[in-house]
Amino acid sequence: MRDVAVIGMGMTKWGELWEKSLRTIFVETALLALDDAGVNRIDSMYVGSMSSGVFVGQEHIASMLADYLGQNPIPSTRVETACASGGLALRLGWMEVASGISDVVLVGGVEKMTDVSGYEATYALSTAADQEYEGYHGITFPGLYALIARAHMEKYGTTREQLAMVAVKNHHNGSMNPLAQFPFKITVEAVLNSVMVADPLRILDCSPITDGAAAAIICPVEMAKEMGKPVIKIIGTGHATDSIALSSRKDITWLEATYQAAKQAYAMADKKPHDIDIIEVHDCFTIAEICVLEALGIVEKGKGGVAAEEGITSLEGKIPVNTSGGLKAKGHPVGATGVAQVVEIVKQLRGEAGDRQIKEARTGMTQNMGGSGGSTVVHIFERE
Amino acid sequence: MRDVAVIGMGMTKWGELWEKSLRTIFVETALLALDDAGVNRIDSMYVGSMSSGVFVGQEHIASMLADYLGQNPIPSTRVETACASGGLALRLGWMEVASGISDVVLVGGVEKMTDVSGYEATYALSTAADQEYEGYHGITFPGLYALIARAHMEKYGTTREQLAMVAVKNHHNGSMNPLAQFPFKITVEAVLNSVMVADPLRILDCSPITDGAAAAIICPVEMAKEMGKPVIKIIGTGHATDSIALSSRKDITWLEATYQAAKQAYAMADKKPHDIDIIEVHDCFTIAEICVLEALGIVEKGKGGVAAEEGITSLEGKIPVNTSGGLKAKGHPVGATGVAQVVEIVKQLRGEAGDRQIKEARTGMTQNMGGSGGSTVVHIFERE
Repeated sequence: MRDVAVIGMGMTKWGELWEKSLRTIFVETALLALDDAGVNRIDSMYVGSMSSGVFVGQEHIASMLADYLGQNPIPSTRVETACASGGLALRLGWMEVASGISDVVLVGGVEKMTDVSGYEATYALSTAADQEYEGYHGITFPGLYALIARAHMEKYGTTREQLAMVAVKNHHNGSMNPLAQFPFKITVEAVLNSVMVADPLRILDCSPITDGAAAAIICPVEMAKEMGKPVIKIIGTGHATDSIALSSRKDITWLEATYQAAKQAYAMADKKPHDIDIIEVHDCFTIAEICVLEALGIVEKGKGGVAAEEGITSLEGKIPVNTSGGLKAKGHPVGATGVAQVVEIVKQLRGEAGDRQIKEARTGMTQNMGGSGGSTVVHIFERE
Repeated sequence: MRDVAVIGMGMTKWGELWEKSLRTIFVETALLALDDAGVNRIDSMYVGSMSSGVFVGQEHIASMLADYLGQNPIPSTRVETACASGGLALRLGWMEVASGISDVVLVGGVEKMTDVSGYEATYALSTAADQEYEGYHGITFPGLYALIARAHMEKYGTTREQLAMVAVKNHHNGSMNPLAQFPFKITVEAVLNSVMVADPLRILDCSPITDGAAAAIICPVEMAKEMGKPVIKIIGTGHATDSIALSSRKDITWLEATYQAAKQAYAMADKKPHDIDIIEVHDCFTIAEICVLEALGIVEKGKGGVAAEEGITSLEGKIPVNTSGGLKAKGHPVGATGVAQVVEIVKQLRGEAGDRQIKEARTGMTQNMGGSGGSTVVHIFERE
């Protein structure tokens, strides 16, 4: 197995991009990544997209996007594991390069979510839950995460204010990310007074509906060095599954797939949680960030809320989390999110993160999660 | 890279399975494959499904199916490239085993297509075409393949009867396959007098709407030998893309992605077309089989129709094609088709194909195609 490096990345401004189609958003983003890497030919590509079929009536996008990127007839593969599709695309791209099958691979993610109504988007997202045991009975994702939040509050004493502090921190970070959908600060009071969605979660606890794409170019480390590129190595990868229905889990406050994926990635990278300098995690709802940090071993079980309150995860804290603004402020075009996490980590490790740059960041991690935790992909990166 | 063998396969009866859900169909099939391989734990799985989101409102099936198969928390990945999703699942499984990342991998495909109306199924399938340049203007797959058929007839003199002979051959083969959806013979007259769908294609030129799944278990050849299993080696793999819209192609009678994918697979296997003993090809419409055989180099350009007429591709012919009954008689649950092709080749190479067994078959090939040829995956297998 060869060592693999990320040598290019691209992301365009996220938001409600009504004037652009899925293919346009993806190709613009992929071209930025190719430019950044300094290559114009790729051997293969992987695209993460959760539900292009339901959102825009278009499956078969791997071939379509390879063609519109001018790369046909290369192999091009779409992968899906709900909101973790982007992270999974990176994992498969890594596998293809590490194994020696290909040298230069594009890894991308895309979702076009605002061509349908909010009601239809909520339905499309609900296809990541267990339709027969959850969806058909009327529950959607805010409701599922509200159950998790309520259980966490009961079990560990997590407060309503601590949930709000996660959103406040991520919007603070996102206010320095010009590509974010909502690049502005919010206050705890604003969160507490925002519209109720599913008790205890309010609208400012929820990540938004977003159009967007992200892309990265990977190749063997040796090739990256020959090209004179900054070498951001992929030193760990993990992928694990869990039941996609909450009702099948022993403890809904514990994200077992995240724990398992992280265990694999830590072992491969030979790292412990305290070795990680920065993390991008899947904060689709404020409670998600809290549970994820516990499952990753970054904080003790039950202490995710306290971590936000004490500022441990802020830009100035011991372990900055979601320096990009996270899904909350940056936006959450579901299939693209996992790759956008990679974009942020690469920017930080290269020292190109502008006002939100973390000094001396050398080791970064991404955690990308599907549904209410039914799948998780974790990667660890290191600057040489 | 390690040599990889198929050590198990499973398939249940295909058809309109209204009493079973997607997860039930898949799990029953996967259990057959595990039994056949003699294993009960797998390291990872890949599932091909074209549009579980549009057909049954369920994405995130990779995790759901791993869980219902009792294999959670293993990594489980859904891949999609329209009707070639099953073939692509095998390719990625092969990559994972060949690279040494995993030892025992389950490769499956599934589609539940009859829970919606015929109109809705036609819409779901149309998401494999270019929605913005084809679908929105009203054309669906029978129409796209009718354009190809008409062009082939004009350019090469292919006759209406030759198209019918492809369906007659495949139904003849399928009449000996008890798992086929339509295991009965038809005549040329029946095809020519069947209901018109899109001129010149009639209903008996078209593969049906089907519920079904298929699964295979793969592992390193060395491990297969230690287990005392018959060794069916994967000696070649290829994957290529083309524009998914017919309007972007120079010649709509030529399947460039099939040509490119086959070129890769032949090179890796060090085989020529005449070295192949049996082939399963993607006969979603009769004209498709004709064009595919030309692109694979099995017959000369323009001679695909003549091959059916002369019996070259029959069970007794020089190169039997679609001994299983093909998509036409066996059925076409789109995401499962590519894996079912593997099931048939493994049966034939093991000598377990019953009345339709080809004597002395040692080298087999599968060709699985997405949309109107926008993606193709080809594999070559050999019995040790």
